[in-house]
Amino acid sequence: MKTELNPDISKALAALAGKTIANVFLVACGGSLSIMHPGKYFLDRHADKLNSDVYNGDEFVCRNPRRLGSESVVILCSQTGTTKETVRAAKHARERGATTIGMTLDAKSPLAEAVDHVVAYQAPYTTGIAIDAAESNYGVLYMILAGLLRQVENKDVVASLLKSLSHLQPAIDKAHIQYTAMFDTFAERFQDRNVIYTTASGVNYGACYSFSICVLMEMLWINSQAIHADEFFHGPFEVVDKNASFISFIGLDETRRLEERTRDFLFKYGDKKNILVLDAANLQLDGIDDAFKGYLVPLIFFDALWKFAYKLAARRETVMLDGRRYMKKISNY
Amino acid sequence: MKTELNPDISKALAALAGKTIANVFLVACGGSLSIMHPGKYFLDRHADKLNSDVYNGDEFVCRNPRRLGSESVVILCSQTGTTKETVRAAKHARERGATTIGMTLDAKSPLAEAVDHVVAYQAPYTTGIAIDAAESNYGVLYMILAGLLRQVENKDVVASLLKSLSHLQPAIDKAHIQYTAMFDTFAERFQDRNVIYTTASGVNYGACYSFSICVLMEMLWINSQAIHADEFFHGPFEVVDKNASFISFIGLDETRRLEERTRDFLFKYGDKKNILVLDAANLQLDGIDDAFKGYLVPLIFFDALWKFAYKLAARRETVMLDGRRYMKKISNY
Repeated sequence: MKTELNPDISKALAALAGKTIANVFLVACGGSLSIMHPGKYFLDRHADKLNSDVYNGDEFVCRNPRRLGSESVVILCSQTGTTKETVRAAKHARERGATTIGMTLDAKSPLAEAVDHVVAYQAPYTTGIAIDAAESNYGVLYMILAGLLRQVENKDVVASLLKSLSHLQPAIDKAHIQYTAMFDTFAERFQDRNVIYTTASGVNYGACYSFSICVLMEMLWINSQAIHADEFFHGPFEVVDKNASFISFIGLDETRRLEERTRDFLFKYGDKKNILVLDAANLQLDGIDDAFKGYLVPLIFFDALWKFAYKLAARRETVMLDGRRYMKKISNY
Repeated sequence: MKTELNPDISKALAALAGKTIANVFLVACGGSLSIMHPGKYFLDRHADKLNSDVYNGDEFVCRNPRRLGSESVVILCSQTGTTKETVRAAKHARERGATTIGMTLDAKSPLAEAVDHVVAYQAPYTTGIAIDAAESNYGVLYMILAGLLRQVENKDVVASLLKSLSHLQPAIDKAHIQYTAMFDTFAERFQDRNVIYTTASGVNYGACYSFSICVLMEMLWINSQAIHADEFFHGPFEVVDKNASFISFIGLDETRRLEERTRDFLFKYGDKKNILVLDAANLQLDGIDDAFKGYLVPLIFFDALWKFAYKLAARRETVMLDGRRYMKKISNY
């Protein structure tokens, strides 16, 4: 089991030693942006002083927050390192004097070229190669933030995080087995649906967002929205009828009661047969510290849900990834 | 024309004089939450030091950011002042030592009782009484934030804001006339649609969100999502075909090029007949300072779009407001 942060993370943090750091900007697009939400949740829950903001890459460049400057750390992420908006955001942040850390699979990509410090991670979905989820985008982002927190505010949760991450992959593997039958059932039920909503709050919101826009919409061409579990009651719930299809995330962070309330409403006014519930209370999380269970749940949910997406795709006769009409197929958009 | 902030705002700010203020939390639910996004945009663009965060009321309570404390100002909003999550958020913030400012129509409501300072505003939609949009939720929030900025950072845009707000209502009245024919056309085209998306970025994102969840979903039972104009290209755009229905907001803030790019894509790969475009470049904004045009555009769009919603409702035989199944009709959810 690791007892220290990855060398590239330690190196990036060492370069920040002694610097005043006032704020952290978490910047990316789409699926890579989705991991930044739990990153901010972690800082909100742990940091006495460090402020953090989450922005889409191009929104960040145009909005150009005045607070961005030499006391800022900007953490960016792009799997291929070629996302133009994110590369532009990195260049913009450096021009404003901020320190930039870029997470990417490719150490020679445009994002890697554009940032002060490159941090690697692993991704299972596109390569098909088995990885350790501890080294995924979420895992590495948590490592960077826990390291930053230790360095800037002298609050050390690094050992607990690393221990918890070392038990993550077995928890994911067990979840896959646990969800197999339920996913088969719901793939059949959802195969012809035109609209499928996802709902979550807190740490889970990012995974809920990513599954909605990057999987349901992008790869399966199903209409969707990631509805925040409490915002649900301030408008969206009016679309609920017995045919409404939802994927309901129930996690273990401090907002769990919001997610439970949404599920309870959906069970009462929708039809249970159309509500796919992932409840982390039923997961086997041996070895993960209580303090990190909530943070690691969305990794488990999202990894598991990929299997569901493929099952759904098989029934819809959509070829995942190749099902795209526009992304990486057309240029100049 | 007013040359100073409303008395209740000045009084709230006077009580803050001399206090160290490190951060601003903007907290509400649903439609009232939607105005907080442009509020944060304003602070991001203008404040050298003031950090700001936008949270749903219950998310805020459960997440309970560590930075919340005696150096925090928490601005909350609830039209009736009875939104339970927002009232709970106000109480929570006061317990943590923050100064709370509550925006509500009802000075005797639970929210008014729960906060340190009550600030009034006007709302046209529920009362049916004509108001001056300068005194709407957006207008009043901007006044609070401009006042706070002047007091805390000695940067004074109050006169420019007040002058601009004084020219807002005429601009809205002109927009209503300008959009009449287009809204008639699109109400007919969209009358049977099952899914209508909205898209925007920057200052407009809040109005885009509110129209999606509080009007299309809540009052017309139409499936929807408010898609951020750049996030659109990182997943959501794959659902676009010739039948896809969108309402595209094009504003005058620094993110305008993001919104234009989305519109251009929709025109190319969708069908122009199904893309309702509101472009602020065509609005008559006489008297509004250039620096505030971008900030006031979403008020104009949103006010105008209410008329569109009623036209759509008439064709769908949905009775607006009474069309709700759950909100204010059932209890204990």
